[in-house]
Amino acid sequence: MNKPLLQIALDTYDLPSALGPLQKAQQYIDVIEVGTILCLAEGMHAVRAIRSLFPEKIILADVRIAEAGSIISKMAYDAGADWVSVVSGAAPSSFEVVLAEAQARGKDMQVELSDGWSWEKAQHWADLGIQQVIFKRSRDLEAKGSLTWGQQDFDTISRLHNMGFKVTVTGGVKPADIGNFAGVPVYIFIAGRAIVNAADPAAAAKEFKDAMAQASLIGAQ
Amino acid sequence: MNKPLLQIALDTYDLPSALGPLQKAQQYIDVIEVGTILCLAEGMHAVRAIRSLFPEKIILADVRIAEAGSIISKMAYDAGADWVSVVSGAAPSSFEVVLAEAQARGKDMQVELSDGWSWEKAQHWADLGIQQVIFKRSRDLEAKGSLTWGQQDFDTISRLHNMGFKVTVTGGVKPADIGNFAGVPVYIFIAGRAIVNAADPAAAAKEFKDAMAQASLIGAQ
Repeated sequence: MNKPLLQIALDTYDLPSALGPLQKAQQYIDVIEVGTILCLAEGMHAVRAIRSLFPEKIILADVRIAEAGSIISKMAYDAGADWVSVVSGAAPSSFEVVLAEAQARGKDMQVELSDGWSWEKAQHWADLGIQQVIFKRSRDLEAKGSLTWGQQDFDTISRLHNMGFKVTVTGGVKPADIGNFAGVPVYIFIAGRAIVNAADPAAAAKEFKDAMAQASLIGAQ
Repeated sequence: MNKPLLQIALDTYDLPSALGPLQKAQQYIDVIEVGTILCLAEGMHAVRAIRSLFPEKIILADVRIAEAGSIISKMAYDAGADWVSVVSGAAPSSFEVVLAEAQARGKDMQVELSDGWSWEKAQHWADLGIQQVIFKRSRDLEAKGSLTWGQQDFDTISRLHNMGFKVTVTGGVKPADIGNFAGVPVYIFIAGRAIVNAADPAAAAKEFKDAMAQASLIGAQ
């Protein structure tokens, strides 16, 4: 039974601010996300530097492709990314061109489910052969004060999993929340500021890993 | 009667490749777009370098904000951008937070009309006080072989103008097409590879400017 992976989201305003916490936490990290903010701050240089530092880690370049998918995915893969993100509202052709680029290189892509995604679109992505999606809680629900993950979220994750997707989960997940995901097929949990801004990033990352090891999580690899 | 502005879109894979053509063409350029690809390649360093080189030009950082609008717009404005772009499918709060950031600094923002935008949304942006939109021809129409700008596009531009927007036009506009926009209230024409990849970028930019000067364009400032 596989356990979910832990992904650190690096969304600092410059590369040096990300490298310190990353270096400290790295032994507990499975996937390093070069976040949209860091990509825009430092460009693909950030991906190159992190690839050079951590040749064995999975690196996601969260470039949020909306169009020009071929060029942007090539840039990110060339810089050392294993995965790139495409937003759910991207131009229809983007999914196909990025997937083709990924498959040609033995790499992968993730569709980021933004407000406005639909089950019909998700089925289309599954039919194309896309294997990974990123699920966030609805901002509308968050705005209404629904601050913890609930059954509606878990049902959505399970349904996406049953369609064949490996599901990354993001949006204010805390170590104390992890146990609530018992039985929910999560592939990856993302933690960002909870690790990066912690006084002790290694301890913060370990706390996530420990919570993931203790909970009855089924993983989804 | 104002004439439209000419914007150069820089979407090279690195900054040096953009600087040469930009330097040659700059006397004919009103707005310098640091394109999404260049932003992702070099980060905000590209905006900083171009601001340093051309302190008097308008600079658009085409960061295509979908969320985290406050952070991304601050980064871009701090780097020297005058304008940032927000995609039409962005999280609803993005429009307000980016507009507030822009207004607080005497800067501006543009909404990029991606597939799926609606007149209802456009009215909402106008009501918020947003003043600029970027209009591209529909990719669907392009895919169907409609390779030139037509009356349907011109009507859309006029209707957006009548709602109070200054409209930037992009998508394969060539100097020979400019005359067709007679009477259409275009604020800015974008040219990218037509200038950047030209053997003589200055001559290519001048050709656009000359076409804009000769045509009966009404501008929209």
